[in-house]
Parts: sequence; structure tokens; C-alpha cells
Amino acid sequence: MILESELYDYRYPVKGCYVWRPYGMKLRRLVESYIRKLLEDSGHGEVLFPVFIPHEFFSKEAEHFRNFENEVFWVTKGLHGEERLILRPTSETAIMPMFRLWIRDHTDLPLKVYQIVSVFRAETKTTHPMIRLREISMFKEAHTAHATRDDAERQVREAVEMYRKFFDYLCIPYLVSMRPDWDKFPGAVYTIAFDTIMPDGKTLQIGTVHYLGENFSRVFDVKFLTQDGKIEYVHTTSYGISERVIATLLAVHGDDRGLCIPPHVAPIQAVIIPIMYKDVKERALQEARKILEDLRQASIRAVVDDREDKTPGWKYYYWELKGVPVRIEIGPRDIEEKKITLVRRDTFEKYEASRDELVDALLYLFSEIEKNLREEAWRFLNSRLKLASRVDEAHKLVEEGNIVEVPWCGKNECGLKIQERANSDVLGTPLDKEISGIVTDLRCPVCGERANTLLRLANRY
Amino acid sequence: MILESELYDYRYPVKGCYVWRPYGMKLRRLVESYIRKLLEDSGHGEVLFPVFIPHEFFSKEAEHFRNFENEVFWVTKGLHGEERLILRPTSETAIMPMFRLWIRDHTDLPLKVYQIVSVFRAETKTTHPMIRLREISMFKEAHTAHATRDDAERQVREAVEMYRKFFDYLCIPYLVSMRPDWDKFPGAVYTIAFDTIMPDGKTLQIGTVHYLGENFSRVFDVKFLTQDGKIEYVHTTSYGISERVIATLLAVHGDDRGLCIPPHVAPIQAVIIPIMYKDVKERALQEARKILEDLRQASIRAVVDDREDKTPGWKYYYWELKGVPVRIEIGPRDIEEKKITLVRRDTFEKYEASRDELVDALLYLFSEIEKNLREEAWRFLNSRLKLASRVDEAHKLVEEGNIVEVPWCGKNECGLKIQERANSDVLGTPLDKEISGIVTDLRCPVCGERANTLLRLANRY
Repeated sequence: MILESELYDYRYPVKGCYVWRPYGMKLRRLVESYIRKLLEDSGHGEVLFPVFIPHEFFSKEAEHFRNFENEVFWVTKGLHGEERLILRPTSETAIMPMFRLWIRDHTDLPLKVYQIVSVFRAETKTTHPMIRLREISMFKEAHTAHATRDDAERQVREAVEMYRKFFDYLCIPYLVSMRPDWDKFPGAVYTIAFDTIMPDGKTLQIGTVHYLGENFSRVFDVKFLTQDGKIEYVHTTSYGISERVIATLLAVHGDDRGLCIPPHVAPIQAVIIPIMYKDVKERALQEARKILEDLRQASIRAVVDDREDKTPGWKYYYWELKGVPVRIEIGPRDIEEKKITLVRRDTFEKYEASRDELVDALLYLFSEIEKNLREEAWRFLNSRLKLASRVDEAHKLVEEGNIVEVPWCGKNECGLKIQERANSDVLGTPLDKEISGIVTDLRCPVCGERANTLLRLANRY
Repeated sequence: MILESELYDYRYPVKGCYVWRPYGMKLRRLVESYIRKLLEDSGHGEVLFPVFIPHEFFSKEAEHFRNFENEVFWVTKGLHGEERLILRPTSETAIMPMFRLWIRDHTDLPLKVYQIVSVFRAETKTTHPMIRLREISMFKEAHTAHATRDDAERQVREAVEMYRKFFDYLCIPYLVSMRPDWDKFPGAVYTIAFDTIMPDGKTLQIGTVHYLGENFSRVFDVKFLTQDGKIEYVHTTSYGISERVIATLLAVHGDDRGLCIPPHVAPIQAVIIPIMYKDVKERALQEARKILEDLRQASIRAVVDDREDKTPGWKYYYWELKGVPVRIEIGPRDIEEKKITLVRRDTFEKYEASRDELVDALLYLFSEIEKNLREEAWRFLNSRLKLASRVDEAHKLVEEGNIVEVPWCGKNECGLKIQERANSDVLGTPLDKEISGIVTDLRCPVCGERANTLLRLANRY
């Protein structure tokens, strides 16, 4: 579908590397511009760091290095063997040496930067378009430094709120979980993750927020002068999202007829199709162009499909495949009666609007479509979120395409056993709901002790 | 200066790789958005291709490969030695295999795409911030395919006109030259280049446009069905610019006090400095914020500097260093008299405007500043463009920081000898002026035959 809609091409001759086509790039740019706005409005400055990281820096934080070591690409030639460089899999170790130069005293903090770049992972698993890549080409990574743990953790909460807004804007449903200790970001104190569910019932990690504590500032020696003249290490955070949000957007809202793109980020929000019967052709075309002008004035992204060698029916299918949220049909009667026929992509419902109120009618439909897409997607996610008190039951539910919450005492050893016995992946513990009421009287299925939280299990991409 | 203005940082610990800071990124984004507009308006679609190119594809076009072979980075690890990949130094060989899939018949042509990406060159020469890089991080490359040579050459002319507009917009002066055969892009039929002159008299290549003929389409087998049912190879072109335009912008317009950024692309177009004497402080601040609001309404990028621990004088220098085109001062008398004091960054001239006409006055000043910067820069370039009929004279003039035009018969062997004897670099033959009138009666200094063109010599970066 992404190939047919000319959005993306997965036939590029390198494993895990794909090509974005113009329609896809327009969608990307619209998605990027919203996350950019959220970041800029909350005081993040855009930066651009080099792709190359010296091995010497990359290996400084031991846990970080150990975890990434086997999945980094090395650049070896043209360098006379003097330097050993890697292609960034993430930029903490590129950014810290510069933070060290930029941060001197407390007035330089907090320091909040972000970049949208390519990062590289030498995936050995099966690669998958937009989801498991060797070149992640839309990696939005933010990096911040703070004077205190409190301020850094406040930043973590700010980032979580920002990502909520972002996914809400894209009509993508999500769970927010604290990843368990054994699955946090290498080098992090803790990791909070956003997961969504795909139509096949597998979950996809679509955003992560890490509190890094002093783990990176100590090894990179990033210190500052406090207000009372002491020298202390900064506390850092990092958080990222990637083109997986676009994969999600397309997979979650699409149907048998093709894509269905939420109006906020649709490259084309409305397509105008004049019904060009012989004797009314000129009038229909004229009217279509007038409407196009009106829509552009109102900052609505629209096009006219005036191709003469295609039938209206062919055009309907064509634009449905591309996921254009609203189709505007202009027939002879519509012109006569100063009316307009509007068709929603999500429900295929038809509406009539008077010509004068077209813009308002469209804006109303856009918000209705978004509401519907968001609700439908959340309904699906919620219908797949189950509670199981026994591990075998959890295993069965995960196999059936559910996300399953199992009572958990909170000890790593029990958590690992739950994960192993359920033979599934783990998302962590819920941060998006009150747990205490749910776990009363529930017991950890491994040790039998009173549960104090839930462990989310799923089949992850 | 670029370090002090917090635009760019050259202290990143990898040779030829640098860091863009938020102020620099804002400038970049503004520069990019104009070239993007020019490209989109002329029918180019944005794409994004992978960084990795398989060696097998990269080496298909023999001349292209031979020339880049020694300056490409190889990616060797994490790939189990199955594939041999290079980091793109330019994307012709990544794009052609996809053009092959996308182009079927004449209705698919012309096909015009562009991307703004990082490209990599394992430079062995001394690297230089924004100018000679190992990671060129703002490479705008366009690639087009056409049914006929005529249409491809029309595209070459369109690209040249687009680049003229682009450099004019940035107030950057340029020469347009046909590069000689021995210095064209590897794999091109011919290369047209834009060069500018830096304050030290050395020239910098800031844009190139290549007609590639069928050189790439033949080796990548990119064919199409013509209207009369024949199968033919497409004709391709490519053209590129990089962050060198920003280096030029800063170097050409800057002075002893710092940067001077043309208003079109200045991240901050006006800085408002309230003079905060004790008793009028509140009023001055209030007025400053009102003005800020008015300017934002008018889409003018402005900030208020209301820091209390800095003197007005300190602030003047600070914003001059950053190259903000206009400074707005608000003193007690200004408020009293409903006036405003404006100071130009380029000439330091002071103006008074009535408060009501502030926006108009600013917009007028912006266009005056741009006119002045453009004229000054062109004046400098023109003052350094010399004609010499003898090679020793040409050599001397080049050494003194000039671009020198020498009569030339047009034969490669003579051109190479001129270049060698003048011990200088060559830019090619002028495409931006009528030559016939100039070369009448002039003779090639090597063979003594009648000259039919001029060969431009310079000291190139």
C-alpha cells in the first residue's frame, strides 16, 4: 500500500534502507513540523551534530557501549587507520563532549537541544520498512542537561506530556510504561516508553524518554559551577521518536481501500473532482478551480483532479488509496443548486454543503474525521488490553494479539520469570493509570507475594 | 566569529566534522526554505534516499568511480562482509536504480527530484569549517531525467536561473563559468559552475549544474517508451549546492564587528533594546513588548533584550556580533515623542521613525540593507575581475587575489598549459557575458592562434 500510494519505496538494493518519495516526504514534513513546534515552544534549540563519533568517545560509558557494540557500523576506509569512527546509533556520546564546552555555570542550565537526523543500527534481525531499519532517517532526538535531579525529572515529565500531545495530534493511541530495569536504554537510570498496538496485535515502541542521571556527565566530565560556588555534575535526559510514528499512522488508520491520513498531516486534505460530462465540462472545471482558490485562501491543502483520460470512479479509488481525507465532487446539479458534495475517507459518508459554507463544512469534517480516527484507534487498543492473574493465561492472550497486564511484586527475578514463562516480550509497568485499586488482593504469580504493580506483556515488533 | 556568535562550533573531535548550534540552524532553515521554494515551484519533488550505496552500483559508471574512489568512506563492519557499502559522496548512483523502476514511458518524464542531506568525502586536504568538510551536512542535490537532450539542456538552463535567483536573494555575487573538460564532474558531459570571491581573494565554488547525457542512464539501463513506441535512454542532469553558501554569506557580508546577515534569512531581523533607566524602566519595557507584538504581527522576526545585568553598550556589541540587521532603541525621549530610533547593522546609520510607521520603516530598511549588501559584494567581485593577455601577468594578478581572464583558443592542451604556467586554478570559460567583443584581436598565449574565448584563472579554495 505504501508502494502503491507512491509514498515510500522498499525496493532500494540495500537491506534495511528505503526511499521516501515526494508524497511521503510531504507527510513527513508535516509530522516533523508539529514535533518541532512542540520542542521550540518549550525552549529546545535545534542543533546538528556530525554522523561520525570517535570510538574513544562512544566507548566511554561502559553499559552504553556494551549494548550497542554489536549493532554499530564502523567507518574504516579513507581515514588511514588513524581514527576509529562509528556511525551514530544515537547521539549521547557525540553531544556530551560539546555540552562540556558549552556549560560553565548554573546560568547555562537547563540546556535543551534537539535534532532530526539519520542514525544507524546494524540490525541482524529481519528488517521491515519504517519499523526496523539500518538507517533510521527521521530520528528526532532531544538531549537536555540540568542542575539538579529534580529539574531533570521535571524535564522527563515535560517530554512525556509533549509526546502525549504529539501522538494525540496524529490520532495514535498509546500506552505509557516504565520499562523494567532489564530493558531500559543502555546507560539510563530509567526509561519511560510509549507503545502502540498494530492491527496484527503486536506492539510497537514509538517513543522513549530516558533519565540518564549523572551516568554520562561523569564519564564525559560535564560539570558546572552552582550558585553557591560548588562544582557539580549535570543531570541529563534524552528522548526520541522516529519514522515509526508514520508507520503507525498509516497502519492504524488505513483500511482495505488504502491509507487514511489524519487531516492535520495529510499532504492533500481535499481533492476536488469535477464531473466532466461533455456539455457541463467547462463549467465544472471553472467551478473546481474557484473552489481550489477558496480553499488555498483558507490554508487548506487541496488539488483538482482534472485528468480527462480517467473516469470519476477511477479517480475516487486513486485518491482513496492515497488517503486524502475528503473528496469534493462537483456535478451539474451541484453547480445549479450552489451546493457541494463532500465524501469522508474514513466512513465514506456523503454530505451536502452549500457552496458558501464550504470552508466551514470542510474544517468541521476534518475535526470529525480526526475525532473518529482517534476514537476508533483507542477503542481497538483498549479492546486488546487484558488482565490475567496466571502466566499461562497471559501467554494465551498475548498469542491471540493482546497486551496483557499481570500482577507483579516488583522484584526483577520474578519479572524475568513471568516474561520467560509467558514466552512473550515485556513493556513494563503502567504509568498511565492508577494501579493501587487494581492490584488489591492480587498476588505475584511467581513468588505469591502481594502484587504492588502490574507487568505488561505483549508480542513486540 | 562563527564560534563567538554561537552559530557553529568547530571544536568537535573529528576532522572535517562540525556542529551547528541553534542560531546557525535557524539561519540554515531560512536559507533552505528559499531554495526549497524555488525547487517546489518549478516542479521538483522532495525525496530522501539512503546514505549507503552498494559498491556494485557506485562503480558502474567508470569515470565517476575512478574520480571518487579515493575519497569515499567505506562501511565495513556489522555487515558480515556480505555487502560492500560506501557512504554517498553524491547520489547519482543511488538514484538511478530507482529511476529505472519509476520511469516506464514518456508520460513519466520529465522526472525532477531533490533532497537536502549529508554527503561524505574523505578529504585528505586540510579541512575548513563549512568549506572543506568530511561530512557536508547541507547538500541540496537535484536529479532529473528527460526524454530528450533538448529537454535536459532546458533543465540545465532552468537550474542556472534558479541558482542565480537563490544567490541574488542571499546577496552573494557570482561568476557563471563552463568548467573546462578536464575539471568537469566525473561522469558529466559538461559542468556549469557558480564561483564567488571571498574577502581574501580566493574563489569558492558555491553551486554546480551538470548535464550527464546518457552516461548514467546507459550503465543503469534507465529506458523509456517514447510516444511513437520506441525504447530510448533518458537524459539526466544533476545540480547541487551546500553549506558553502552560508560560509559565503557570512564571510562576504561580515566586518570587524562580526556578522551581518541579510534580512531575508536573518534568524533575528530586529532586536529591540529598551534603555532601562531607573524611573522609566517599566515604561520602556512595556513599550518594547508592545513593539515586539506589532513586529510579530507583521511577520518580522524580532526579540527584546531586557537583560538587567548588561549595559546598552554591551548589548549593542553583542547583537552586532550576531549580525542582526536592525537595532531598535527605545529611550525616554522616544516614548515621549512617539518616536523610534533605528540603527542599521551594515552602515551603522541612525534613523528616526514615528512609532506608527515603524513596520513600514523597518521593511524599507531591510530592502535598503539588502540592496547595499548586494551592491557592495558585487562591487568587490567586479573590482577583482581582471583581463590579462600574458600568462606571467595572469599569474601575478592571481597571486594578488584577483580572478583573471586570459584569451584562449579553446584547445584543451593550451588550456592546461595556461593553467600550469600561471600556476593557478582554473574556473572555466564565462557564461555570464558576451565574449566575442572582448576577444577580437586577442590571441591564445600558448599557440598564438586567434582566441575564441577566455579562460578564467583564480586561486580556488
